[in-house]
Amino acid sequence: MKWMHVTYRIAASAEIVAARAEALAREQSVECPAAAVTDPRVREAVMGRVLGIEADGPSHFRARIALALETVGDDAGQLLNMWFGNVSLQPDVCLVDVAWPDGLPALPGPRFGVAGVRERLGVARGAMACTALKPVGSSVAALAALAGMAARAGFHLIKDDHGLADPVSAPFAARVPAIQAAVDAANRETGGRCVYAPNLSGGPRAVQRQLAVCRDAGVGAVMLCPLVLGVSQVAELVREEIAVPVLAHPALGGNLRIDPAVLFGTLFRLIGADMVIFPNHGGRFSYDAATCRRIAAALAAPLGGHRPALPVPAGGMTTGRVGEMCASYGEDVLLLVGGALLAADSPAQAMGDFVRAVRGQEAAHG
Amino acid sequence: MKWMHVTYRIAASAEIVAARAEALAREQSVECPAAAVTDPRVREAVMGRVLGIEADGPSHFRARIALALETVGDDAGQLLNMWFGNVSLQPDVCLVDVAWPDGLPALPGPRFGVAGVRERLGVARGAMACTALKPVGSSVAALAALAGMAARAGFHLIKDDHGLADPVSAPFAARVPAIQAAVDAANRETGGRCVYAPNLSGGPRAVQRQLAVCRDAGVGAVMLCPLVLGVSQVAELVREEIAVPVLAHPALGGNLRIDPAVLFGTLFRLIGADMVIFPNHGGRFSYDAATCRRIAAALAAPLGGHRPALPVPAGGMTTGRVGEMCASYGEDVLLLVGGALLAADSPAQAMGDFVRAVRGQEAAHG
Repeated sequence: MKWMHVTYRIAASAEIVAARAEALAREQSVECPAAAVTDPRVREAVMGRVLGIEADGPSHFRARIALALETVGDDAGQLLNMWFGNVSLQPDVCLVDVAWPDGLPALPGPRFGVAGVRERLGVARGAMACTALKPVGSSVAALAALAGMAARAGFHLIKDDHGLADPVSAPFAARVPAIQAAVDAANRETGGRCVYAPNLSGGPRAVQRQLAVCRDAGVGAVMLCPLVLGVSQVAELVREEIAVPVLAHPALGGNLRIDPAVLFGTLFRLIGADMVIFPNHGGRFSYDAATCRRIAAALAAPLGGHRPALPVPAGGMTTGRVGEMCASYGEDVLLLVGGALLAADSPAQAMGDFVRAVRGQEAAHG
Repeated sequence: MKWMHVTYRIAASAEIVAARAEALAREQSVECPAAAVTDPRVREAVMGRVLGIEADGPSHFRARIALALETVGDDAGQLLNMWFGNVSLQPDVCLVDVAWPDGLPALPGPRFGVAGVRERLGVARGAMACTALKPVGSSVAALAALAGMAARAGFHLIKDDHGLADPVSAPFAARVPAIQAAVDAANRETGGRCVYAPNLSGGPRAVQRQLAVCRDAGVGAVMLCPLVLGVSQVAELVREEIAVPVLAHPALGGNLRIDPAVLFGTLFRLIGADMVIFPNHGGRFSYDAATCRRIAAALAAPLGGHRPALPVPAGGMTTGRVGEMCASYGEDVLLLVGGALLAADSPAQAMGDFVRAVRGQEAAHG
């Protein structure tokens, strides 16, 4: 019998917490009253069990619950389902931690990881710089020109905005070769190795068509939103289709009541993300610095032999904060800056300043 | 220019709400400061705009925001993304309503709808009864026996538990033909038309393999979790693959901070759900009766010519509550009862009692 240990934080009084935790263990396994589980094997090997409960602040408890790995199989969607499928509908519960005493489901993990991404980007050490192509609604020519400008400014990675799907203003099949060509041209001029990551979206057939466009254009990375595409689809794509590093975007993930270190750190890494975008502290999103560091730590922590993934903090990123960011995350970080540069009087100048600040960190500490 | 009108509820003071709403309109469209949007077409036709703000209780406001349909295309994942992708990471905001003054994205909608499902189930009018096969961990033989018992008891629809994916104890390829055979045998005995809905899960290739198993076994409906599989995948499957009614399960949907009537009512229906499970009031989940009625109303409301879908309230369902449920939802309802019956001394007797109560409602009012 193999189990994973999932810790939930429950809002409950001391009088009811034991019963609440038992109900939770059944909800996320057999989904019925214990009295309805008549098969001894199911009671023994499949029904969730409460391992321990401890107080965690006023009117809250942490319950550690063992859930059977056999209910998960090797599917990421089912893993998410067993962690939090029905519980998502019960607002008194958050998922705060997962431990793997008996091993992990067979999921792909990062195929490149930090070292592989560094090799692709041609950056042996030091922090790296990423920017986004926006706004949605722009023409292919405008987006390609912006990509060329960013590549010339020295950005290591350029990604589509996650709102850039397959709009009539810049269809994927026209946009991706044009942007890749602009980045290639800039690389030839600068001798750089800037990589472009287009945003995959849509149903599986649409994604297949987009991947063919990426292969034909010689694209060096892809971006996707695992919680929009579905984590099972992402794991399958990583296993069977995508031959370049994967950048994962956190869209829709903000309020699943799953701890962001578990969701963006552990789960996104398990399904194969080599780089993970998450909301940076001090920006227009809600995480504090400690949460951001926990996400980054989860991307690098031991996890069944999987490679570490690269944290990509985003939001509220400015040239003036680069030093603070590098001090917070260390050198294995890809700093994502977006709209702030585009609002400058000279976006090209602002891009250059940002990249120099990032590259200067390495010089300062190296 | 075509727009959808999305209403967000924002926690904010009167001093800042106008700026907060403007920022939200940009976040869910161009994702950058207005100053960075230099293309006049993008400013005019793509950048989100605030249509109105009104107070909604202490320290809360409702902001109606126009978002351009051209950023969505005809993809359900991108629709979800533009509604709530980044905003999900900002806890001061909930999505509470969507209106379509300029038409809808081209999504499949229900191919069967209430009338088509009734025809398949052979029930011209009155409420219908559904139960779930559980617990996960049970053998194929045990699940098939349970399905036979439920079909003989007169249930109209029998579904897999959503925790039943592709476990070693009851692999999909072995389970589905065995359960369908048990239901077929019961139907031959009773003259009934009970339908079995297996649970599709996993990546696109796994789902394709499962659909082939379903076709070979003559399965009459399928269940799936749109927020686990990804809404884009579901819409594509409905358009191109699935030839039977679709039952949608709400797993993971409980806390997206999207109003459940919009999420389970409008969105699930748009992507092609013919029947939608949602947490019933008075059970172990959190919705109140008014919210449940709003979900059911959204499944039947005018929506661009799409067929109405059937509400499937679940959780806390007992034989004693059947009358109350039918009074609450009306006759176009499929009442889902699960574990409560299995914990009875005689599950077969309890199943029969439940089905008689449901069928009796029609007789009482018919």
